[in-house]
Amino acid sequence: MKLYDGGRAPNPRRVRIFLAEKGIDIPLVPVDMGKLEHLGEAFARLNPMKQLPVLELDDGTILSETIAICRYLEELHPEPALFGRGVLGKARVEMWQRRVEFHLLGTIQAVFRHTHPAMKEMEVPQIREWAEANRPRVRAFLEILDRELAGRRFIAGDEFSVADITGFVSVQFMKPARIELPPELTHVGRWYNEIAARPSASA
Amino acid sequence: MKLYDGGRAPNPRRVRIFLAEKGIDIPLVPVDMGKLEHLGEAFARLNPMKQLPVLELDDGTILSETIAICRYLEELHPEPALFGRGVLGKARVEMWQRRVEFHLLGTIQAVFRHTHPAMKEMEVPQIREWAEANRPRVRAFLEILDRELAGRRFIAGDEFSVADITGFVSVQFMKPARIELPPELTHVGRWYNEIAARPSASA
Repeated sequence: MKLYDGGRAPNPRRVRIFLAEKGIDIPLVPVDMGKLEHLGEAFARLNPMKQLPVLELDDGTILSETIAICRYLEELHPEPALFGRGVLGKARVEMWQRRVEFHLLGTIQAVFRHTHPAMKEMEVPQIREWAEANRPRVRAFLEILDRELAGRRFIAGDEFSVADITGFVSVQFMKPARIELPPELTHVGRWYNEIAARPSASA
Repeated sequence: MKLYDGGRAPNPRRVRIFLAEKGIDIPLVPVDMGKLEHLGEAFARLNPMKQLPVLELDDGTILSETIAICRYLEELHPEPALFGRGVLGKARVEMWQRRVEFHLLGTIQAVFRHTHPAMKEMEVPQIREWAEANRPRVRAFLEILDRELAGRRFIAGDEFSVADITGFVSVQFMKPARIELPPELTHVGRWYNEIAARPSASA
């Protein structure tokens, strides 16, 4: 098994943090997103979506999509469970993972991709108005999350899950997107600091 | 258990088709999206994301997010398996479901929301340039899908899955988004007609 990795971008980081939490060691194959290597023909043969990361199994089977890769690894290495436990627990993790992915990672990504000079060749055309439409949505979701985190330790419940990984990587991604984390959202701040203190956070 | 339903919108339809394929009968509570009922305060107490559908369990527990609801129902009613079989089969369904969701449903949605007069109050501001940026992405993904469907019966493999539900609802959603399905994509056409002939298609 090997993992085609994309460095600091949010999705490659999500999978690396997932691996660190599971204690799984997979050889990484670096793909240079800065040099647009993932947009070339050679990489498109691996993943026609031209996105990272990509997991290649020993028989050559290709799996793409961050959450599909993580779920595959969860099936092979069930502990610690990062997609929840029990029928309802699993549904809650799925719900929160998706809420965070669409309403936080997705909106931050829209701001980043449509404003950052480094994205000029990847996001064509960059539409400033679309970035600005998404900026208040980042804040609106963080306010919802703050109310939720007032009542529990992690995003999807009392146990750390893949929803926290998506959330943590999203909040870190606010920095290159040049969005400030509102300091008055103290529950998000408490949660963020706790996740940042885990050894996996540097993966 | 009851399902807050949103009529013709793609996500409510995805869950209703899923229920029909499983042969599960759940009472529906209609929410009038045309009258923006889902954006009101009463509905926000059920789902702060203000999105449909929402599943309410008998103890009052709320589950939102189409795929979280479907996965919960899959755990309760495993057959027919719509999230794949076996470790790799499940990962393939997850991968394709997400590819279709992001690159087809998501791009069609961008075109629809940012051009259709009926979305004026729901998508503020409507950004014509963002719709136009997404239009070629719909086509690009359909071309990838056409090549894939040349070699197999369903989107994620030889069995019908939730990826086909997302794909089918997406292609139907092209009509209100006023995007034509390119007739030369004959494998997509063959697949679409086959899914449209299933009894669940009218759900």
